[in-house]
Amino acid sequence: MNLKILQHPIKYDGSQIAPLWAYGMGIKGDSVVIFHGPMDVTLDNMKDFEDEKAGKTIKGDDLVHIIVERFDSPASMRLAYYMQRLLIVSVREVLGKHGIITSRNGDDLFIDDKKLTVSIASAGVTSEKIHCGINITTQGTPLEIRTTALLDLGINDWKALAKEIAENFIREIEDIEGDIVKTKSL
Amino acid sequence: MNLKILQHPIKYDGSQIAPLWAYGMGIKGDSVVIFHGPMDVTLDNMKDFEDEKAGKTIKGDDLVHIIVERFDSPASMRLAYYMQRLLIVSVREVLGKHGIITSRNGDDLFIDDKKLTVSIASAGVTSEKIHCGINITTQGTPLEIRTTALLDLGINDWKALAKEIAENFIREIEDIEGDIVKTKSL
Amino acid sequence: MNLKILQHPIKYDGSQIAPLWAYGMGIKGDSVVIFHGPMDVTLDNMKDFEDEKAGKTIKGDDLVHIIVERFDSPASMRLAYYMQRLLIVSVREVLGKHGIITSRNGDDLFIDDKKLTVSIASAGVTSEKIHCGINITTQGTPLEIRTTALLDLGINDWKALAKEIAENFIREIEDIEGDIVKTKSL
Amino acid sequence: MNLKILQHPIKYDGSQIAPLWAYGMGIKGDSVVIFHGPMDVTLDNMKDFEDEKAGKTIKGDDLVHIIVERFDSPASMRLAYYMQRLLIVSVREVLGKHGIITSRNGDDLFIDDKKLTVSIASAGVTSEKIHCGINITTQGTPLEIRTTALLDLGINDWKALAKEIAENFIREIEDIEGDIVKTKSL
Amino acid sequence: MNLKILQHPIKYDGSQIAPLWAYGMGIKGDSVVIFHGPMDVTLDNMKDFEDEKAGKTIKGDDLVHIIVERFDSPASMRLAYYMQRLLIVSVREVLGKHGIITSRNGDDLFIDDKKLTVSIASAGVTSEKIHCGINITTQGTPLEIRTTALLDLGINDWKALAKEIAENFIREIEDIEGDIVKTKSL
Amino acid sequence: MNLKILQHPIKYDGSQIAPLWAYGMGIKGDSVVIFHGPMDVTLDNMKDFEDEKAGKTIKGDDLVHIIVERFDSPASMRLAYYMQRLLIVSVREVLGKHGIITSRNGDDLFIDDKKLTVSIASAGVTSEKIHCGINITTQGTPLEIRTTALLDLGINDWKALAKEIAENFIREIEDIEGDIVKTKSL
Repeated sequence: MNLKILQHPIKYDGSQIAPLWAYGMGIKGDSVVIFHGPMDVTLDNMKDFEDEKAGKTIKGDDLVHIIVERFDSPASMRLAYYMQRLLIVSVREVLGKHGIITSRNGDDLFIDDKKLTVSIASAGVTSEKIHCGINITTQGTPLEIRTTALLDLGINDWKALAKEIAENFIREIEDIEGDIVKTKSL
Repeated sequence: MNLKILQHPIKYDGSQIAPLWAYGMGIKGDSVVIFHGPMDVTLDNMKDFEDEKAGKTIKGDDLVHIIVERFDSPASMRLAYYMQRLLIVSVREVLGKHGIITSRNGDDLFIDDKKLTVSIASAGVTSEKIHCGINITTQGTPLEIRTTALLDLGINDWKALAKEIAENFIREIEDIEGDIVKTKSL
Repeated sequence: MNLKILQHPIKYDGSQIAPLWAYGMGIKGDSVVIFHGPMDVTLDNMKDFEDEKAGKTIKGDDLVHIIVERFDSPASMRLAYYMQRLLIVSVREVLGKHGIITSRNGDDLFIDDKKLTVSIASAGVTSEKIHCGINITTQGTPLEIRTTALLDLGINDWKALAKEIAENFIREIEDIEGDIVKTKSL
Repeated sequence: MNLKILQHPIKYDGSQIAPLWAYGMGIKGDSVVIFHGPMDVTLDNMKDFEDEKAGKTIKGDDLVHIIVERFDSPASMRLAYYMQRLLIVSVREVLGKHGIITSRNGDDLFIDDKKLTVSIASAGVTSEKIHCGINITTQGTPLEIRTTALLDLGINDWKALAKEIAENFIREIEDIEGDIVKTKSL
Repeated sequence: MNLKILQHPIKYDGSQIAPLWAYGMGIKGDSVVIFHGPMDVTLDNMKDFEDEKAGKTIKGDDLVHIIVERFDSPASMRLAYYMQRLLIVSVREVLGKHGIITSRNGDDLFIDDKKLTVSIASAGVTSEKIHCGINITTQGTPLEIRTTALLDLGINDWKALAKEIAENFIREIEDIEGDIVKTKSL
Repeated sequence: MNLKILQHPIKYDGSQIAPLWAYGMGIKGDSVVIFHGPMDVTLDNMKDFEDEKAGKTIKGDDLVHIIVERFDSPASMRLAYYMQRLLIVSVREVLGKHGIITSRNGDDLFIDDKKLTVSIASAGVTSEKIHCGINITTQGTPLEIRTTALLDLGINDWKALAKEIAENFIREIEDIEGDIVKTKSL
C-alpha cells in the first residue's frame, strides 16, 4: 500500500471517493492518500443513502482527510466496511498513544459524546474506497451535532498525526496479508 | 449471529476450527460459541503453517475459547482475518472498559509484553472460522513465552467477560451489515 | 428477509428496480416489498436489452408488484435469475393452492396461453433485484399480447394473495439458507 | 449442459457426489447424468451433517439417480442449493404433466405425505454438485419413513421420465443463461 | 464463444466496449466480433484513465477491430486483462505463421519499434470486454507515435487474418475451459 | 511476486503443487520458485484427472521445475489456467530470444512434434498453483512420447534460462496488475 501526503489543502466534496481518484493524483495501486482542507459533501456524492435521504449536511472548515483505495477483482462492499473499521481503530489507537482517549461507535469516534470524525466506505466493480475525516477545528461543523477537533485536543501537527495513523493502518493491512499467506485452508 | 455459551469445559485441540463444528453442538448458522477449558493444539490441527513447521506448542491449562463461524458462498480467507482483527479489537475494548489496558500487535494482545491471547483464522469452501483463546491462568502455557492471564488481572468471572466480548463483537458485525445495506456503490 | 406490504398504489415505471429503492421506503436489508398500481416501464429503466431494442411496451392499468432485493458482496446476476425463477415458482405454487393452474415458461406464467405475469431480474455491485408483476386487470396491457388477470380468475384480494406468495418465497429462501449451513463442502 | 443416461444399474453410495465423478464416466464439463440402482449412502459420504450426526439411513432398493455437476471458479454452495431447488421443481413439473400431483417442501417431494425423493447439494472449490434420487420402488426404503415410488404411481419407464426431467431442467438452466446475457446491470 | 464477422465498416469510437454491445448486433452470449473501420476514441469512452488524463489521441483511418465479451457473475477486471494478453498472444502467433515477427510488450505489438496494435480491457458487473485494434493502414494514426500497419506488411485480406486470429483465440479459451473441468482442486 | 532459485536438486513428485509448499521453503506470499531435478509424479498427486484415470507416467531424469503460487480470497481455477498459459507463453518467448522456435498447443511446447514441457495448474481455497517442467534431458521421459530437451537444443545453463523465464513472467503479471489499477470499469 502506497502512502502519499498531499501538502496543499483540498476541499473534500465527496468526489474523492470515486475509484481511481488517487490515480489522478499520480498514485498507482492500493493507496492511502492524506490531505487537509474543508469539507462540504454534495448530495450527489453522498454514498450513505440515509444521509442523502435526510438531506444531511456533512461539513467542516478544516479536517484531515484519509482516502483509502484497495483494488480487487471483484471488489467487495463488505470488505470495504471491515477495512474501514480497522482504519477507525487505527485512528483510535494512535490517538490513544498521544493520550487522547476516544470511544468508538461503529465508524464514529467520540470524546465525551462530542464527534471527532466522519467516515464512509463503498465499493465499485474494481476497488474499495474509504474516506475518514478528522476535525482539525470544530468551526463550520453542523450546528445540530456536538463536535470536537484536534486543535481542541492539543494536536497542532495534523500531518505528523495523519502519517502515524496511515502507517499504523498500512502495517495492519500488510500484517493481515502476511497471515493469509501462511494459513492452511479448512 | 447466534451466541451460545457452553457451560461445561472442553479441551481445545484445534479440531473445533473445522467447519460445522458448532452445528455439531446444535448451533445453526453464523455463530459465536464460547466455552472454557485447557488447550493443546495437535500438529494436525494447526492452521498456522509457520507454527506447524516450527513444531510449536500451543498450550495452556485453562482458557476462554471463542469460536466464530460465518458462512459465505464462497468463503474468503481475507475476510476471515479482517473479522479476526475486529474480534481481537473487541476483546481489547471490553478489557479496557474493565480498566485493563492491553497493547495489540496484529492478532495478539499483550500486557507489559506478556501475552494474554492466542488466535487463528481460516476459511474453507463455505465458511470462515476464528479461534481466540484468552488465558484464564498462566499455568501450562509454554515456558518460552512470557504470559499473563485473566486471574492475574483480577477477572474471575470468565463467563461474564466472554459474553460481553461476544456481544460487542456481534454488535460490530451487525453494525457493519447495517452499513452495507444503506450504501450506494461506486 | 423483511416483508413489507405498501397500502397505497404506486406506479411501477422501472425505477423501483434500482438498488436501495426499498431503503428509501424505510426497509433495511434483504426484503420483499409488495404494492399494487399501474405499470409503464420507461425505455430508460428497461433492464432487458431485448425489450429495449425492440422498443417494447411494458404496461398495464393495475398489477400486483413484488420487488425483491438481496444484498451480497459482490452480487451475482446469475443468482438474481435463479432466485427470480424460485419467485415465479412461488407464484405458481400459491395460485395452484387456490385452484388456478398455470403453465410456466422460464419467468413467465400463462393460463391457456394468456400471459399473467411480467418479470425481470438484475444485479448491481452490492445487490440483486427482482421485479414480478401480476396482472390484476387485463386493462391497459399491450394489445399485441393475449393476457389474463387475477380478477378474471376470481381473485379479488390481491393483498392476501401477494402476502401468501411472499411468505412462500421467503420460506423457500430461508430454507435454502438453512441447508447451506448444515452441508459439508466437497 | 451435457445429458448422459447410463444403461447399467449403479449403486448410489454417495461417492458419486464427488467432483469430477462424471468425468470418470467420460462426460466432460457441466452435466446431468442419469442412472438407476439401489442406494445406500455411507456415513462417510453424507454431506448433510444433520443426517450424519443422526446416523441416518439413506437407503432404497431401486431409485432413479440424477447427478448434476456445474463448474464455476469459484463454485458456490448457495448456487448449488438454488439450482437443486430448480431441479426438484423440474421433477415436480414433469410428474405433473403425467398427471401425478406432488407437494414440495424445500427439496423433498411428497404424495399424500409419502416421500418420493431424496436430495442433497454441495460445492467444492471448482464445481457444484446435486444428487436427486426418485424411488422406483418403496422396497428397501427406511421403515421409519412413509414412502411412495414411481411403480406405485403407474410409471414403469424410469428412463423416459428421467430423460424428460433432465431435459426440462437443462432447458431451465440454459434459459436462465440466456436471460443473463441480455440483461443490463444495475 | 460465438464468432461474428461484420462486413460493413464501423467507426470504433470506444462505445463498442460497453457491455451488451454485441447483443445489440444480434449476437448472444460470449462472443468475438470482428469488423474494420476508422478509430477515434472519444475522451468519454476512454477506459484507460492514464490516456484520458493525458488527453491522448487514439486514432487511425482503418483498423481491424476485435471485440471480445465474456459473461461472468460477477465479472473480474483481472480476468479481463489475463484474457486480453492471450488475445494479443493470438494475434502475435497468427502473424508469426504468416512470417511476420512482432515483439510484444504487455498488450502492445511492435515491429522494429513501430506500433501495430492498440488494446484495452475492462469489466462491468456482468461481463468482461476487450478491444484490440490492428492498423490496416498507418494513415491517420497519431503523429507522435511511429506506427506500422497490415498493408505495409503485405497483408491485404484483413478479414481472413482476423478470422484466423479469432479462431486461434477461441480455441485457446475453450482449451482452457476443457482443462478446468478435468482438474482436481488442491 | 517473489522469485527464488533453489540451488540443490529436488525430485518433483507432484507434492510441490500443494498450497503453501513455497512457504515451507521460507518463501512468503506470491512466488515463483525454480529448481531442477528428476520428475516422477505419483498417482496420488496427479491433478489432471485424465492422466490419473489413464494411469499415465509423468517422468524424466532431469527437468527445470517452475512452481508458481498466487494467493487470492477466494482462489480461482480459471485464473490459474489463464496464468499458466501466460507462463507457457513466457517460456516460449524466452526460448525464442535464444533462437529456439517452439510451437505451442495449449499448455504444451513442441519442437518438431517433440514435446519439451509438461504443465498443470490448479487451485485450492486460497491460492492458485502452477507447475511447469522443462526437460533438461530426454533421458527417463516416457517411451511412448517423442520428447526433446534443453541439452539437445544447446542450452546448458538451465538456471540462467529459468531465471529469464521467471523474470519475463513476473514482469507480465505485474504489468497486468498495473493495467488493472488504471482502468475504469464498465
